[in-house]
Amino acid sequence: MGEFELISHYFAAAACAQAGDGVALGIGDDCALLEVPAGEQLAVSTDTLVAGVHFPHNPDPYLLAQRALAVSVSDLAAMGAAPIGFTLALTLETANTDWLQAFANGLDQMARACSVSLIGGDTTRGPLSLTLTVFGRTPKGLALTRSGAQVGDLLCVGGYLGDAAGALPLVLGQRSDDSTAAKALLQHYWSPQPQLALGQALRGKATAALDISDGLLADCGHIAAASQVCMQIEVDKVPLSASLQACADDQAARQCALSGGDDYVLAFTLPAVELSPLQTQGWPVHVIGRVVAGQGVEVLDGYGNKIIQAVGGYQHFGRDGG
Amino acid sequence: MGEFELISHYFAAAACAQAGDGVALGIGDDCALLEVPAGEQLAVSTDTLVAGVHFPHNPDPYLLAQRALAVSVSDLAAMGAAPIGFTLALTLETANTDWLQAFANGLDQMARACSVSLIGGDTTRGPLSLTLTVFGRTPKGLALTRSGAQVGDLLCVGGYLGDAAGALPLVLGQRSDDSTAAKALLQHYWSPQPQLALGQALRGKATAALDISDGLLADCGHIAAASQVCMQIEVDKVPLSASLQACADDQAARQCALSGGDDYVLAFTLPAVELSPLQTQGWPVHVIGRVVAGQGVEVLDGYGNKIIQAVGGYQHFGRDGG
Repeated sequence: MGEFELISHYFAAAACAQAGDGVALGIGDDCALLEVPAGEQLAVSTDTLVAGVHFPHNPDPYLLAQRALAVSVSDLAAMGAAPIGFTLALTLETANTDWLQAFANGLDQMARACSVSLIGGDTTRGPLSLTLTVFGRTPKGLALTRSGAQVGDLLCVGGYLGDAAGALPLVLGQRSDDSTAAKALLQHYWSPQPQLALGQALRGKATAALDISDGLLADCGHIAAASQVCMQIEVDKVPLSASLQACADDQAARQCALSGGDDYVLAFTLPAVELSPLQTQGWPVHVIGRVVAGQGVEVLDGYGNKIIQAVGGYQHFGRDGG
Repeated sequence: MGEFELISHYFAAAACAQAGDGVALGIGDDCALLEVPAGEQLAVSTDTLVAGVHFPHNPDPYLLAQRALAVSVSDLAAMGAAPIGFTLALTLETANTDWLQAFANGLDQMARACSVSLIGGDTTRGPLSLTLTVFGRTPKGLALTRSGAQVGDLLCVGGYLGDAAGALPLVLGQRSDDSTAAKALLQHYWSPQPQLALGQALRGKATAALDISDGLLADCGHIAAASQVCMQIEVDKVPLSASLQACADDQAARQCALSGGDDYVLAFTLPAVELSPLQTQGWPVHVIGRVVAGQGVEVLDGYGNKIIQAVGGYQHFGRDGG
């Protein structure tokens, strides 16, 4: 079976999930064709996941596909974009039919959950890795960027932090735990839920936004740098799930929430006046700090003392890498 | 140096090459934002190149970058699209500054040649591979697809075929040759020129088109399948460069032209009435056969005898691979 047949056979479901909505021509030609209504812009993001770097070697293909697509779609949520479609570049050691079928099922599951369809791709032989490029649309001028945070804004997140980092020892097989709490953490790691509806609800309200992939401190550092402000976090206000608190002691849980990556929860800045209406409408908006004059990120303890003044988080190439 | 800094530092030139033309927000946020004028569609294509599969291990980074971008942009040419931008997902074993600088220079060179700008990307550690996603635009309804070939149309190509396949023994170090002809073949392999202007000139004229990446026979097979017709090729009419003829005997040169991949020359079908005006305007249009009723691909010798009736060409997963 050739390259084209391989893709079209196994990924037909994901390709059909939402075909037609903004997709004028899908998989199978030299290019796909997208339509963007007048007055809207197309949001585009690319992410690569490599075996042994972003996920363990020999992952469950169903879970891998779910996670890879969710991670990419989360960037659309962070821009306040409504999803249209995605391309998948899949590099595999061998074309095993069971593996491909399970992978395609996971992809289809997440594609349906996110209302996004597969519009094209490439399948090649090589060390296992995936590159997804996702497409969405936003009304012109209303995309949520990282550069608009204003001194005085509230710093908010859209949900619990640290669950994915809490799951990591389980994912890597360093620890085993059959508890309900541990299963919930693993669920969060493998099947993050992009906050698409929240992102769209924040259009015209949030002054800056992103999704937390590198860790709260590192990602707040990105907003701080782009907006030329300082992000002040009150550590006691960072929301922790009951599952994480059941699986880790207080200090470890806090460390996961501040520096762990892979949560794919939105972090955003909000003028104070916008808070109450959003909370009244039931959106998950947790205030964890504020935007102040300065630069970088500060973490305050319950007494208002600075306990961290730095930017951390996982980065793929360290300073010693270059 | 972190992931973001790595990309922004080395790839700043390619990012700036044409910034502004259809790119509302470039590299550095969760998503890039593209604008598509009313009445136009966005063309999207993704290609992955893996070390040891699509190019030799330890390639010249400048040439690798040139070739990778050209290969991807060629898909826009095949749709008759005008290029806007591209994303680059680069996976590297190590972040070597000299390597990155040379790669960035090659990328910039081809980005300028193709009037396309880098709008986003991802840099990860792992076995060397690249995934590029390219974006272009076409007037609505005028994109060149593979499915419109009509019985009676002429089958045409936009230039010499087989040069890249002729270069392959040199690329792989199986043969060395310092002749001018050999250098020309290598130049074609590493720096293919996407036929963007020709693709746009064929809008509203060609009934089907693609770029030859898998080889003439395999790619004509794609048009035949999509259009439900048979593509009949007259082997003596397939244009061969003087360089290829200098480096290979007649039979080998013909084999390169029919089955070799990587030429990135356009193949297209054209109602006979369209031929003369295009040739008069100076477009490189070589008639190599015709569209007939049936299916698949036939190759005729100079006496009109069928010498091949099959579809071949390089496919990444063979029948025995699944």
